[in-house]
Amino acid sequence: MAGPERNENKEPISELTTERLSIYLRCLNHLESMDEKTVSSHELARRFHLNSSQIRKDLAYFGEFGIRGVGYNVSRLKQHLRSTLGLDKMRNIIIAGAGNLGMALADYNGFHSNGFYIVALLETDPAKCDRASRSGIPVYPSARMAAIVRKHNVEIGIIAVPADNAQSVCDAMVEAGICAVLNFAPVQIRRRAGVKVKSVDLRINLESLSFYLTNAGTGICAEDEEEE
Amino acid sequence: MAGPERNENKEPISELTTERLSIYLRCLNHLESMDEKTVSSHELARRFHLNSSQIRKDLAYFGEFGIRGVGYNVSRLKQHLRSTLGLDKMRNIIIAGAGNLGMALADYNGFHSNGFYIVALLETDPAKCDRASRSGIPVYPSARMAAIVRKHNVEIGIIAVPADNAQSVCDAMVEAGICAVLNFAPVQIRRRAGVKVKSVDLRINLESLSFYLTNAGTGICAEDEEEE
Repeated sequence: MAGPERNENKEPISELTTERLSIYLRCLNHLESMDEKTVSSHELARRFHLNSSQIRKDLAYFGEFGIRGVGYNVSRLKQHLRSTLGLDKMRNIIIAGAGNLGMALADYNGFHSNGFYIVALLETDPAKCDRASRSGIPVYPSARMAAIVRKHNVEIGIIAVPADNAQSVCDAMVEAGICAVLNFAPVQIRRRAGVKVKSVDLRINLESLSFYLTNAGTGICAEDEEEE
Repeated sequence: MAGPERNENKEPISELTTERLSIYLRCLNHLESMDEKTVSSHELARRFHLNSSQIRKDLAYFGEFGIRGVGYNVSRLKQHLRSTLGLDKMRNIIIAGAGNLGMALADYNGFHSNGFYIVALLETDPAKCDRASRSGIPVYPSARMAAIVRKHNVEIGIIAVPADNAQSVCDAMVEAGICAVLNFAPVQIRRRAGVKVKSVDLRINLESLSFYLTNAGTGICAEDEEEE
């Protein structure tokens, strides 16, 4: 893959930045579907209520520069962001835990498509094994995790087990060779060198709605951006 | 409630900003648990790999100013953010859809605690009604939605139904008087005046891990912030 040029002296990229890249990508998909050819950083800034300088900084970091007075080429910037996010390569995934959450994630739109492939759910409860999610992802006994990870070159593990089991499941994933973990359990996972653990906090979404309910009518809540 | 002073001429606040406020709040909770009394915008910026000017701007918008050379008072800023986010008031919630996703969300940590209260799940399939989630949230027939919303003054509706039913469920919620909707279905919901619809896109988390896998070892991936 011909990745973007990088300057090793740059400051590291945070999760908040990579999430912005994902959001820019969604916007570019939308613009492309509307047959828009170019977009300015000011237009992107208006949509996201960000500083346009923040957007230019985010994009310039990865070597993508807009043209003054013209902006960014939509399809080129989109491909550039896909490549930066590593979405031009297939990633195999396992989900630990075949309870309600694991089964919901196995069938969740976007988790098993477009560059991501869920190989299996893994479960310690024998009563939940040897069946499949609605969309057909099989459930296997947890004891088979290491073999499945090796056989299918699984890169991402999703933790959908209760909090008490999350650390030991994460340890087993890392032991099996997984370097990237998405944790849905409400517990802090110990950091390990060379392993990225991203914990999902769905409550933030409720807090955004609470903010809206508290401040609606004061004029400070932005309109929804997605349907502009 | 004594809310923060607001200037009606200010630009509107986006979801990305309110999400940053939630993240600052988690950081302040952590700092308070460590018995830290003050924190500077530079220290917050270091943790989040943001511009400290962005943080100062976010906080100043709501009337909270740090003291030069000292920073922000942790417990005061925390209380200020809780109040800004409307978390000092209880919000009642219903979840539409008692499939795997709805049941997982009903039992999800942080959705039924600390200012949020899930009154019920609502379901069209009679076979899934008249039972309860593991944590005890009852499942009622969807036909009872309007009565439940009115009786319990429900402010937030969560959509956990398949994409094809999401719009009609949202319409029913709005009809019943709900003004804030959290949508997990992979479909665009039509905008209605006076109603906030926030769609959750869990795939962004996988894209962050893909970014890490693509760029690990190049020195541009930030270390996890949460355990600093």
